[in-house]
Amino acid sequence: MSSSPAQQPSPQLFFQTVNAYQRTEALKAAIELEVFTAIGEGNATAADIAKRCGASERGTRILCDFLCIIGFLSKEGNQYSLTQDSAIFLDKRSPAYLGGAIEFMATEKLTDNFRSFADVVRKGGSLDEEGGTVAPDNPIWVKFAHAMAPLMAMPAQLMAKLVDPSANQKLKILDIAAGHGLFGLAFAKNNQQAEVVALDWPKVLEVAKDNAQKAEVSDRYSTMEGSAFDVEFGSGYDLILLTNFLHHFDPPTCETLLKKVHDALADGGRAVTLEFVPNEDRISPPDAAAFSVMMLGSTPSGDAYTFSELEQMFRNAGYSSSENHDLPPSIQRVVISRK
Amino acid sequence: MSSSPAQQPSPQLFFQTVNAYQRTEALKAAIELEVFTAIGEGNATAADIAKRCGASERGTRILCDFLCIIGFLSKEGNQYSLTQDSAIFLDKRSPAYLGGAIEFMATEKLTDNFRSFADVVRKGGSLDEEGGTVAPDNPIWVKFAHAMAPLMAMPAQLMAKLVDPSANQKLKILDIAAGHGLFGLAFAKNNQQAEVVALDWPKVLEVAKDNAQKAEVSDRYSTMEGSAFDVEFGSGYDLILLTNFLHHFDPPTCETLLKKVHDALADGGRAVTLEFVPNEDRISPPDAAAFSVMMLGSTPSGDAYTFSELEQMFRNAGYSSSENHDLPPSIQRVVISRK
Repeated sequence: MSSSPAQQPSPQLFFQTVNAYQRTEALKAAIELEVFTAIGEGNATAADIAKRCGASERGTRILCDFLCIIGFLSKEGNQYSLTQDSAIFLDKRSPAYLGGAIEFMATEKLTDNFRSFADVVRKGGSLDEEGGTVAPDNPIWVKFAHAMAPLMAMPAQLMAKLVDPSANQKLKILDIAAGHGLFGLAFAKNNQQAEVVALDWPKVLEVAKDNAQKAEVSDRYSTMEGSAFDVEFGSGYDLILLTNFLHHFDPPTCETLLKKVHDALADGGRAVTLEFVPNEDRISPPDAAAFSVMMLGSTPSGDAYTFSELEQMFRNAGYSSSENHDLPPSIQRVVISRK
Repeated sequence: MSSSPAQQPSPQLFFQTVNAYQRTEALKAAIELEVFTAIGEGNATAADIAKRCGASERGTRILCDFLCIIGFLSKEGNQYSLTQDSAIFLDKRSPAYLGGAIEFMATEKLTDNFRSFADVVRKGGSLDEEGGTVAPDNPIWVKFAHAMAPLMAMPAQLMAKLVDPSANQKLKILDIAAGHGLFGLAFAKNNQQAEVVALDWPKVLEVAKDNAQKAEVSDRYSTMEGSAFDVEFGSGYDLILLTNFLHHFDPPTCETLLKKVHDALADGGRAVTLEFVPNEDRISPPDAAAFSVMMLGSTPSGDAYTFSELEQMFRNAGYSSSENHDLPPSIQRVVISRK
């Protein structure tokens, strides 16, 4: 960001923002057409990239120029090349490929929540009468489980190391709204004595079970079908994971769940929350803070909660203490709350 | 933009870009709800702004925080304030208010062109079978004429001063695709001896005629209805204005029109083109270069042409010379081509 003082008035930010949707659509198109993979394979000119992607040369040239402008490609003469980040995250041949995340993040089911955003702001929540993304058994979560897993591998590993650094004790773990299952699975891979119960909608659990098999921990992995608010958790858990879950609900709903989690924990057990946690100013760090808009558009009353708000909810639900941990380079944070 | 070398790999730009559409929708909602005007009037907390805007406090707080994150507001404690640019361009009470431009720029008729953008890139042009925005008599241009006029007042004035600095000679001017009419009107206001003929679709000309009346130059302002490609221009023009017009068409179509313009000019007359003119690399300056994506999505074969491409078209159409002029602080450029 520029920090030069006393700038001339300029409508530039206004124009860039009015057209910002084109950035989303261009990136989505580039991933769909495999433009990044094509360039990674050595196609450098618009003509060659177009041929590899089955697209028009004109469209490809304009798209690639735009991808340069918005930071995803470089250009020398008429040759395009990948930036470091595009090579790592957007070339399909890369093990860290994240492009599939658009299948969830840029799906119309999600983006359409923002089409009448003034009405969303008027109402104070998603216009979807069925509850937005938190409607029971919403099929979007199966898409989520498939699309978002690659994104979560890194934070899941970091979280397991943070919470269970010695990894030498028996642990009974409940993974609430497990999705792709990667968080629970990271604990199971980190500690050979960890046993994980994954809770989610039945079709989502199919994805988690597949991932457990791939991780070769199926013998220490079991599942529990249904809503976290309704199903009987059992008891005696050392850890209960709440990853990207609380942000969907309002504080009273969160507290109800946190009490239930409290009851299911063993003495001294810990609730482990992974969240977008903005600073108390709610506008920094920008990416974590911006997540509240996603919750405004897609849920009836969710939010990106600050640490003091989360701490208050846990305190109200009977926990003795909560600690806030950064998880760099992830933009998310981990809150560890002790029974 | 950050320029720190050897950065850690980060998917941050990917996430920001996948969600960039939310910036468009949030800005659109803020303008629609008059959030900037409300804050300009002295409402500073989410509660007060919400009340003034007829919106929920929760939605308003999340929207205003997001507007801080994306650069349109500042925040101290729980008090929001306008940035310099938001006060000038987005508070309805400001004479330089531009918010109305969303009525054209963010209309679904335009933004929907980008919804299947991979298909647009495959095809190499708008998917609209009727020709996109360049379809005959497309009602979007009436919207355009109303919404975009405030944006064009400044470049129109700058252009008139650039092209007619002495303003002391009789001038016969043809304003092609006049729209709101502001370009021709700026010449008429700049020079009391200038007479302007404005050409556009009939309903669009109603807007231009209104603006001529407001500018008190109706006695030197006449109109010509129809398509620039079909209608008989007449002859002997000192200046023919081509403002934001050539970008809609491919070079052969442009050249056909430029020959017709050439025939209508007096000896020594000049065609005056206002355009988004990227540098020869086609990726700078970023805002002008990015305009090509708008043309890819919304026209069959338009583009943001470089100066060398425009010069070539004018040369092929018989002009003796073309000059390229910056028009700061506008991001557009003026190309003056002599018969």
